[in-house]
Amino acid sequence: MFDVSVWKKLSRGPQVILLKDAAVISAFTGLQSGDHVVDAGAGSGFLACYLGSIVAPGGRAYSYEKRPEFAKLACRNVEKAGLQDVVEIKEKDVLEGIDEKGVDLVALDLADSPNALSQAFAALKPRGFCVGYLPHAEQVQSFVAEGLRVGFLQNQTLEVIHREMLVRKQGFRPENSGLLHTAYLSFLRKPLKT
Amino acid sequence: MFDVSVWKKLSRGPQVILLKDAAVISAFTGLQSGDHVVDAGAGSGFLACYLGSIVAPGGRAYSYEKRPEFAKLACRNVEKAGLQDVVEIKEKDVLEGIDEKGVDLVALDLADSPNALSQAFAALKPRGFCVGYLPHAEQVQSFVAEGLRVGFLQNQTLEVIHREMLVRKQGFRPENSGLLHTAYLSFLRKPLKT
Amino acid sequence: MFDVSVWKKLSRGPQVILLKDAAVISAFTGLQSGDHVVDAGAGSGFLACYLGSIVAPGGRAYSYEKRPEFAKLACRNVEKAGLQDVVEIKEKDVLEGIDEKGVDLVALDLADSPNALSQAFAALKPRGFCVGYLPHAEQVQSFVAEGLRVGFLQNQTLEVIHREMLVRKQGFRPENSGLLHTAYLSFLRKPLKT
Amino acid sequence: MFDVSVWKKLSRGPQVILLKDAAVISAFTGLQSGDHVVDAGAGSGFLACYLGSIVAPGGRAYSYEKRPEFAKLACRNVEKAGLQDVVEIKEKDVLEGIDEKGVDLVALDLADSPNALSQAFAALKPRGFCVGYLPHAEQVQSFVAEGLRVGFLQNQTLEVIHREMLVRKQGFRPENSGLLHTAYLSFLRKPLKT
Repeated sequence: MFDVSVWKKLSRGPQVILLKDAAVISAFTGLQSGDHVVDAGAGSGFLACYLGSIVAPGGRAYSYEKRPEFAKLACRNVEKAGLQDVVEIKEKDVLEGIDEKGVDLVALDLADSPNALSQAFAALKPRGFCVGYLPHAEQVQSFVAEGLRVGFLQNQTLEVIHREMLVRKQGFRPENSGLLHTAYLSFLRKPLKT
Repeated sequence: MFDVSVWKKLSRGPQVILLKDAAVISAFTGLQSGDHVVDAGAGSGFLACYLGSIVAPGGRAYSYEKRPEFAKLACRNVEKAGLQDVVEIKEKDVLEGIDEKGVDLVALDLADSPNALSQAFAALKPRGFCVGYLPHAEQVQSFVAEGLRVGFLQNQTLEVIHREMLVRKQGFRPENSGLLHTAYLSFLRKPLKT
Repeated sequence: MFDVSVWKKLSRGPQVILLKDAAVISAFTGLQSGDHVVDAGAGSGFLACYLGSIVAPGGRAYSYEKRPEFAKLACRNVEKAGLQDVVEIKEKDVLEGIDEKGVDLVALDLADSPNALSQAFAALKPRGFCVGYLPHAEQVQSFVAEGLRVGFLQNQTLEVIHREMLVRKQGFRPENSGLLHTAYLSFLRKPLKT
Repeated sequence: MFDVSVWKKLSRGPQVILLKDAAVISAFTGLQSGDHVVDAGAGSGFLACYLGSIVAPGGRAYSYEKRPEFAKLACRNVEKAGLQDVVEIKEKDVLEGIDEKGVDLVALDLADSPNALSQAFAALKPRGFCVGYLPHAEQVQSFVAEGLRVGFLQNQTLEVIHREMLVRKQGFRPENSGLLHTAYLSFLRKPLKT
């Protein structure tokens, strides 16, 4: 088992992708041990670590990050998580190309994710998934439109909401306030034949 | 990658645990390849298959089901999913005992899940998780109260909501109607020392 | 008291605005007895009837509908609701002008609601509200942008979600499936001085 | 129009009932000008003020509050809202009896709301509503069970969720964090014949 207490110990620089969203990126694409995945930008490296924990031991997660300070932070987090044999932080702009080929999943969390879709398409194996982590409605529209243009099939877009419940002697009820929105998750799929 | 189209091909007898909930059961406990898990009752075997897809190839999922017709159905689904080397359906009432010891996770979806908590506690390794899939508020209260009584630490309870979004030329909006509630997920954890 | 059983007896032609949204349109604008309101298009006349029930007896609701068959349907619903002294269905395209001046509230539910905003602005009294009932995100953006252009202040946009709860001997839980989205409600306000 | 800026100017002592919930209490019972309503406890008087704004000018809202300091605060808020001719704060424990008879609506927000149900039943006119504002699931169960026992018909229970949307140049999305739960609203109805 991956030690879930690690999530609280990692350093948080840029906004992180939370477990609630990482769980769905993994589950809805069928990710499992042995798979090869790419994500960009690494940010603090949370998503890369989660994906790494699933593809370990035989698989590999490559995480692109163009800003040196974030790449360094992500590297430290990968080591804290004990995932250095599985997760590789690459200090490189994903828009300049994805080195890996035939990967199972590309996850994009960039201000301009649509611009990375042709690179993602080229890197994916047939029937591989590209998932966008997109805070705004307009970003989803651009992501899906550009995805269709480069040859992806549209799969689905959803928002993941977790309602924390208080379970106490005085009664059962949802938490009063908390997180309402992180991002929409948009799933594109590469066709079997292109 | 596990072929996600399998989820639509499996036979649905009793109510199934959906991917939205299975994803969180797996992610919030840190499940990964090589782990050993127990779930009960198997029902149609959906949860066992998802957990099996994550713990493969080195791990194992044992799924208890006391009703012969469901056990048979679950077996067929495991074969359809190609997980027969990882998932074992056991035609046995989990209340009569869990054969496995030192497991990482026990997931319970029974009408009387609280009654299985002492068995779950005994089967788990230190820091292992027991997760209840509980449709009603009162079931959550009983599950947590009995869990604390047998020695578990209370971790958290949450409800997972997925909002499907329509992304079309005419505009972006949430799906008009759909699924609102399946069950609350309640996480208990076995202490390091008992 | 207005007889709430009326809502189930009215005829439903075009998509109706539900009480969950009508309640917020009324409450967030401070609507009360004696006020004058305009809505367009009338559709089946549900919103006009609800607003009429609040502004009665001294106030008045004017409901514009350009399609004769809907105007007729709305008229019949107003009579069924016993609101013929308060609600007036006007068979007229609101884009051609709002006859009333100094009204407290204009509610718009049109395919091209932004095009009606300058008419709404002219009809409203200072500090009056214009509320858009807008199914898609892009419609909200257009509505707010055009609203600001014609002189409105942006107030707020929200989505109203009602979760029905089952309260039974066997337990308490949310309804399994149901309505997820009707429309976003966008509130614009006319400044005190223009 | 009732001046909605008043809501921000009222003093907040005890937890207040928000407009999102007050709107539904009013709309789902058919409240309108001329009606007579009772609520208890007054708390800061927010609900009494909202109900008062709807029943004005001919109706009346009676708000019971046993704690002198809250009754005083509620009185001051009623004056700030300019509703002193419509809303009467009564410094009295509602469990000791409701003086009014034949009222249209009784709204209860007490730690022990079920204990006030027989008083509410006696005060209501036939087909009048009693609405409970109940933070916990167990309170809803007690409220409904006791309501049925004293002769009410069960109507419905729901939770009202407002999702604030950000509508900006950079895009459209739900607010990141905020209010998740206030209370469940449970509607009971007095039968026509008792």
